[in-house]
Amino acid sequence: MARQRRIILCGDLVWAHDEAEQIFDGVAVVVNMDSPNRADFLMGLKPGGKYDGAVGIYRHNVSADRIGVFDKEIITALAATGTVKWIAHNGAGYDQIDVKECAKRGISVSNTPGAVDDATATTALYLLISCLRHFSLAERSLRTGTWKTPISSGGTHDLTGRTLGILGLGGIGLRLANLVHAFPMRVVYYSRHRVRNAPEWCEYVGSMEALLKQSDVLSVHVPLRADTVHLVGEKEIRTMKRGSVIINTARGKIIDEEALIRALEDGHISSVGLDVYPDEPNVNPRLLAFPQNALLPHMGTETQDSQREMEIRALLNLRDFLLEGRGKDLVPEMRR
Amino acid sequence: MARQRRIILCGDLVWAHDEAEQIFDGVAVVVNMDSPNRADFLMGLKPGGKYDGAVGIYRHNVSADRIGVFDKEIITALAATGTVKWIAHNGAGYDQIDVKECAKRGISVSNTPGAVDDATATTALYLLISCLRHFSLAERSLRTGTWKTPISSGGTHDLTGRTLGILGLGGIGLRLANLVHAFPMRVVYYSRHRVRNAPEWCEYVGSMEALLKQSDVLSVHVPLRADTVHLVGEKEIRTMKRGSVIINTARGKIIDEEALIRALEDGHISSVGLDVYPDEPNVNPRLLAFPQNALLPHMGTETQDSQREMEIRALLNLRDFLLEGRGKDLVPEMRR
Repeated sequence: MARQRRIILCGDLVWAHDEAEQIFDGVAVVVNMDSPNRADFLMGLKPGGKYDGAVGIYRHNVSADRIGVFDKEIITALAATGTVKWIAHNGAGYDQIDVKECAKRGISVSNTPGAVDDATATTALYLLISCLRHFSLAERSLRTGTWKTPISSGGTHDLTGRTLGILGLGGIGLRLANLVHAFPMRVVYYSRHRVRNAPEWCEYVGSMEALLKQSDVLSVHVPLRADTVHLVGEKEIRTMKRGSVIINTARGKIIDEEALIRALEDGHISSVGLDVYPDEPNVNPRLLAFPQNALLPHMGTETQDSQREMEIRALLNLRDFLLEGRGKDLVPEMRR
Repeated sequence: MARQRRIILCGDLVWAHDEAEQIFDGVAVVVNMDSPNRADFLMGLKPGGKYDGAVGIYRHNVSADRIGVFDKEIITALAATGTVKWIAHNGAGYDQIDVKECAKRGISVSNTPGAVDDATATTALYLLISCLRHFSLAERSLRTGTWKTPISSGGTHDLTGRTLGILGLGGIGLRLANLVHAFPMRVVYYSRHRVRNAPEWCEYVGSMEALLKQSDVLSVHVPLRADTVHLVGEKEIRTMKRGSVIINTARGKIIDEEALIRALEDGHISSVGLDVYPDEPNVNPRLLAFPQNALLPHMGTETQDSQREMEIRALLNLRDFLLEGRGKDLVPEMRR
C-alpha cells in the first residue's frame, strides 16, 4: 500500500482551516504538527513515524516555540525523508529557515510576499504619522489624565512636503511609497538595483549615502540576511540630517540598536517608530525612555484579513508544487 | 492726532511672530492682549484704554482661558468701539464665537479653513488605522511589558477594501477621502449638498441613513452648530452595521457620547477613534475602559507646520480686510 501523501502544518491554521481541506482535497492529507518539542518532531519524520509520507511542510514562525527554527538539523531530517521537497513559509521574512541548507538538500522554500505588503506598509505609515506628530505620547498623556500637557507643536510636522527615504523598494516599500504619495511626501529610495516598475515620482538616488542625506524620515524595508545585519549602523545614522526619524517594520537586527539609542540620546534622531526588535519579544527598556518613540509589538501583518490571505497563499504554494511541480512564491535565492 | 490703528492679538503668536511685524508694516500696530481676565479686557477696549484704536482682532481659542469665549458680552464691547470690524479666528471651527451676534453688529469673522485640512485629515487617518488594527492597545501592551499578549488578529482589519463614510465633505473630509483612496478604501459621503468638485470615486449617497448603513467606518467632519449637536445619536449609531468604527476629529458634541458608550458596551460599535470630546479637556473616563479605543487630546492641528500656516493665514485675513476691505476666509454664514 502506497504511503499517504501528507502536508505537515508546522503552526496551526487560524483563519483558513476549512479552506485547507478543500485546497488539498484529493491531493494530500493535512496533518497538524503536534510535537511538544524538537526531538518528538524529528522522531515523527522517520519511517513509520507520525509524519511519515510528508511531501511538503507548511511553516509559521509560531512553530519555533516548540521545535525551534528550521536550522541545519531540521533541514537534514526533512531531507532524510526523501519525500519532503517543499517548505511553504507563511510570512514575508524567512530568516528562520536555513535556505542555503535547503538548496543544498534539494528542498524548495516559498514565502508569502504580496500578502503582507498592504498590512505592513500600513503599519509603517502609522508609525510615521505617530513619530512626526507625537501621537503615541499624546495618547499616553490623555490616558494618564494630563490631556496634552507634555506636547508642544515644536518639532512636530506634517507629512506633506517632507522626504521619505525607502531602504529597499520591494513590495512593502513600494506599497508605502504609494500610500505617502497621496499626501504627497517626496519619495526617494535606494535598493541594490533600480526598480524597473517603480513610478516616476519614486526617485532612485543611486547610493545609501545619498538616501540618508536626503531623507527626513528613513523607512527600512530590506530582508534580514547576513549582509543586512546592522546595515543601518553608527555611520549611516550620523549621515542623516539632525532631527531625522527612523521607521523599521522589517527586522530589528538590520539597525544597530546601540547606535540608534545613542543618536536618540543626543537628539541626532528625534524619534523612532519600531515594529521589530533584535531580540523579540524582548524590548530594550532604553527605547521606552524616549516618550516620543512609537513602539509596536510586531503587529505588521496582524490583521484578520492579511493573516487569512497569508495562510491561503502559503497553502496554494504547496498545492501548486504538488500538482504543477512548483509554487509561485519560490524565494528569490532559489530562482534562476 | 489720529489714533493708531491696532491689531489686538487675543492669543499669542507662537510661530509667526516675526512675520506679523512684516505683514502689518505700515498698515497697523500689533498689540498683544495681556489682560488677565475679562473685566480688564473690556476696560481696555474703552476710549483711552490700552486696546483703543483696535480695527481688527486676531483670535485663538487659548484666549478663552483668560477672557472666555467671544460671547454676546464681548461682541457687544467690540462693536461699541466703533472701529473693530473684523475678527480673524485661528482655527477651522469657530464655535467659540457668537457669529450671529457679530453679523447683527456688523463685525465680520474669518477662520482658517484650508490650513487645517491636511493636519486634521492625517489625524483622522491615524485614528482609523489605530482602530482597525488595534494599534493603540498594542502600544500600551508593549510598554507595560506584555508584548502583544492581549491582541488577537480577530476583529482587526486592513483598511483596503473597506468602506469609509464621510459625514460632511468639506476641506477636511475631502482631504481624508484622498488619503484613504490610496489604499483604496471605498469612499461614500453625505453632506447637505452634493459636492461639485468631489472626485468621481467619492460617492454621494443622498441620505444620512444610506451613509450609516453602508459604512464600515464613519468619520465625522461637520462643524458644530445648534443643528449638528448630537447629529450622530442613538438612532444613527444603531443604523450602522454591528462592529462598525466611528472616528471624530470635528467636535465632541456632534456625537451623543452616552449613546456611543452604550454601543461600545454592547459591541454594536467595535471601537472609536476620538480627537475631540464634549467637555474638553475633560474626557469621560468610561471611554478609557475600552482598550481598543484610540483617544487623542485634540491634536488635530498640533503641528509646527500647520500652526504656523494657520497663524499666517489668520493674519493675512486681517491684512486683506484692512487693505482691500475683505479677508479671503469669511465664514460661510456671512457670505452672500
